[in-house]
Amino acid sequence: MNKISDAVISRLPRYYRYLDELRQQNVERVSSEELSRLMHVTASQIRQDFNNFGGFGQQGYGYNVQSLYEEIGKLLGLDTNHSMVIVGAGNLGRAIANYGNFKNRGFDIVALFDQNPALVGMKVGDAEVRDIETLYDFVKENKVEIVALTLPKEPATEIAEKLIDCGVKAFWNFAHTDLSFSDDIIVENVHLSESLMKLTYRLFENQKQQKNEE
Amino acid sequence: MNKISDAVISRLPRYYRYLDELRQQNVERVSSEELSRLMHVTASQIRQDFNNFGGFGQQGYGYNVQSLYEEIGKLLGLDTNHSMVIVGAGNLGRAIANYGNFKNRGFDIVALFDQNPALVGMKVGDAEVRDIETLYDFVKENKVEIVALTLPKEPATEIAEKLIDCGVKAFWNFAHTDLSFSDDIIVENVHLSESLMKLTYRLFENQKQQKNEE
Repeated sequence: MNKISDAVISRLPRYYRYLDELRQQNVERVSSEELSRLMHVTASQIRQDFNNFGGFGQQGYGYNVQSLYEEIGKLLGLDTNHSMVIVGAGNLGRAIANYGNFKNRGFDIVALFDQNPALVGMKVGDAEVRDIETLYDFVKENKVEIVALTLPKEPATEIAEKLIDCGVKAFWNFAHTDLSFSDDIIVENVHLSESLMKLTYRLFENQKQQKNEE
Repeated sequence: MNKISDAVISRLPRYYRYLDELRQQNVERVSSEELSRLMHVTASQIRQDFNNFGGFGQQGYGYNVQSLYEEIGKLLGLDTNHSMVIVGAGNLGRAIANYGNFKNRGFDIVALFDQNPALVGMKVGDAEVRDIETLYDFVKENKVEIVALTLPKEPATEIAEKLIDCGVKAFWNFAHTDLSFSDDIIVENVHLSESLMKLTYRLFENQKQQKNEE
């Protein structure tokens, strides 16, 4: 299979979400035109995206919702279980641990870690907050592959490097810095404030436009 | 000014963040090549992006860090104050309210709202959790332009529509659904689980590749 572009990969989870909704509404088949209307993207974009993965079946008759949902889930690695720990048990870490949907998608949050003794021992969802001192041994013993970093930027790089030595393969990074390691280590940097700035950019553009029209 | 592409707009906050770091390190000038190395994007991409906004000054001598930071901040609408409320005072809403950096960037979180009486009255950062019944009057009286929605998907659309009637112009939406209204209403949808799925896609691709190489 050719290397798939990052833009296409970014759209897969969105297809997955819409197909999940259709599936829950007992819709059996969906055409690219119907998906197009629902998702506000063009039907040709959808067909092009799907062609990267062999097209997912007969286009003329539309797609089978359940099997398309499962195929995309497999592509996203959601048919296997992933164990994940969260480093940083503040509000953001706890928000993620409490998010029930992750479990349905095969993400098993096995523990949270924090340096704050007041948080250690607290139950969050099905997981417990543990002392950050025990993080590295825990990750090795439990063969944890994915770590969510919900902590300040200062310690993030050092902690991530130590975790790589313990076998961690992927970081979901919310610390306010871009982490980047060798190619075999996956990093997904989430910068919440940057999405808010995109919003204010567009808000500001709209306001300028309205002033021009007045 | 021509309409700027969404891809360019998405990169502006990232430039802003790197320039802020350079500024804090008292770096006075930076070339597109130096920015390129720091940010892992090509220098020609940077120059192209900046050309959308007139180029931001002499390229041969590099850019003045402080003035480039300010110019991009202005583009992002960060030189004016924005008042924002958060609807949903669960962990995610509180995480956002507690995030100190927003205040430095001109985002003034004036209140949180929740339907849970146990949360009403709680102080989060500088703001207080209020009864969701009082949301619409508050928004009208305080001319709130931006609302962060950190609540389940079911009530999100209805609440957003009522808020538009009260004058809200922009939504930072964390509910697990794509909100979309008329062109004059800005929506930035943040789907946290989708970024996690992108991560597992790439993790899974790496694992397949390693197996092929073995």
